[in-house]
Amino acid sequence: MTVASRTVDAFLGGAFEAVQPAGGGHRSGLEAILLAAAVPSAFSGDVVDLGAGAGVAGFAIACRCPAARVTLVDRDPEALACAAEGLARPANAAFAGRVSIVSADVAAPEADRAAAGLGRESADLVVMNPPFRNAGAGTASPELARRAAHVLDADAPDVWVRTATATLRSGGRLVAIYRADGFAELLAALAGRFGDRTVLPVHPREGEPALRVIVAARKGSRGPDRLLQGFMLHGEEGGAYLPPAEQILRAGAALADVHPAWRGTL
Amino acid sequence: MTVASRTVDAFLGGAFEAVQPAGGGHRSGLEAILLAAAVPSAFSGDVVDLGAGAGVAGFAIACRCPAARVTLVDRDPEALACAAEGLARPANAAFAGRVSIVSADVAAPEADRAAAGLGRESADLVVMNPPFRNAGAGTASPELARRAAHVLDADAPDVWVRTATATLRSGGRLVAIYRADGFAELLAALAGRFGDRTVLPVHPREGEPALRVIVAARKGSRGPDRLLQGFMLHGEEGGAYLPPAEQILRAGAALADVHPAWRGTL
Repeated sequence: MTVASRTVDAFLGGAFEAVQPAGGGHRSGLEAILLAAAVPSAFSGDVVDLGAGAGVAGFAIACRCPAARVTLVDRDPEALACAAEGLARPANAAFAGRVSIVSADVAAPEADRAAAGLGRESADLVVMNPPFRNAGAGTASPELARRAAHVLDADAPDVWVRTATATLRSGGRLVAIYRADGFAELLAALAGRFGDRTVLPVHPREGEPALRVIVAARKGSRGPDRLLQGFMLHGEEGGAYLPPAEQILRAGAALADVHPAWRGTL
Repeated sequence: MTVASRTVDAFLGGAFEAVQPAGGGHRSGLEAILLAAAVPSAFSGDVVDLGAGAGVAGFAIACRCPAARVTLVDRDPEALACAAEGLARPANAAFAGRVSIVSADVAAPEADRAAAGLGRESADLVVMNPPFRNAGAGTASPELARRAAHVLDADAPDVWVRTATATLRSGGRLVAIYRADGFAELLAALAGRFGDRTVLPVHPREGEPALRVIVAARKGSRGPDRLLQGFMLHGEEGGAYLPPAEQILRAGAALADVHPAWRGTL
């Protein structure tokens, strides 16, 4: 019998480890760590990571924020197995007691999610890195088209935001990382449900359009939107990270520590 | 008889003049010049400035872009009188022949706008600086509330975007400057009508949230959204403009010349 091939990867300069499927498109890294860095180290309360995959973002939050209790939610058995295997590693013992794992589909009806352990209004903070819909993807047959349509629906930002809304307590916060060319769609999904919408563009380098956005918002608020000064990952030349990004990725810095524009957002 | 008090103001280091109402809330400056600077100097074609006021943005485009024909549209008689008086000034003689003035309400039905001289699909480029709705404004009486509701409707980004859509030729471009905390509402109004939506945050200074956005989009396109590196107006301390902003305001530079992130947007 062949078991799935997995790797063990260290993050934040070795502060924690994650077990991930080898190869394929489901490995986490930069995005998960940036998402986690958006949470202040002093955060205290219940965090739900929707679509947590192998748990990199959730582990990073639990590792960085000693007063956070983290629930990882995913529907993929291999991701859940990786998360469980990762959580059991000795390197993660310091925070493993504050992390739990729930097998649930973000797009499932609320009763099914609740039965799986993802309760209504159970979180102070929801973090998510939703799949990005490839609206232009071609389909070769009616059956594929039907399947694709199903996938598109389940992956729509609106579905993820709706589940985040149900999961959050009143006044709770949502933080999402998303592809920059989908940020308007994400904001539209938040409209009416969340206020204090704050958008942080994440640029690969000086002068280039954002490749990702980090969006924070507060459930039920009517506070105004804010568009923050962008965060740069790389210098003008070469692949090296700029010091602020390096601090986040290798030393476990909080985003607010290295990018003052983010301060006070959460 | 007392006539309205007006001032003559020089812009772009004296390259053109505008006649504006003295005092009050309708004087143009920074926003109009930034909006105009978004248009490349080599632009050629028909430009419509919706809600042109005294004509500062439209004059700046006509002055900077020798192949642009500009139509100023406003409903306010005093603004129209200022625009006409400004256009007749000797300082503006070089471009006055390429500028026309139309008295029309952006919120009027299409037939009324057309009768006033703002034809359907007559523009290659629409520029606008829509009024910002103060949704929280209180009202003291049913009559005031009714009036306020009317004003709110007429000022909604959706109304302005609808008129811009009707005014543009197929594939034509829209450029708007808007308050940053309303950018999501503006993007929502563009959705389905415009693609290639490009958002440029305009920050007062390093680390501060954007106060304005410049948004460009193409009618009928399905191209992806882009979120550009922000433009900074001031240095970290004091009120002096940074050199790129200074170049735009005092020397008539195009935005793309001083902020490479904007290049290729229009």
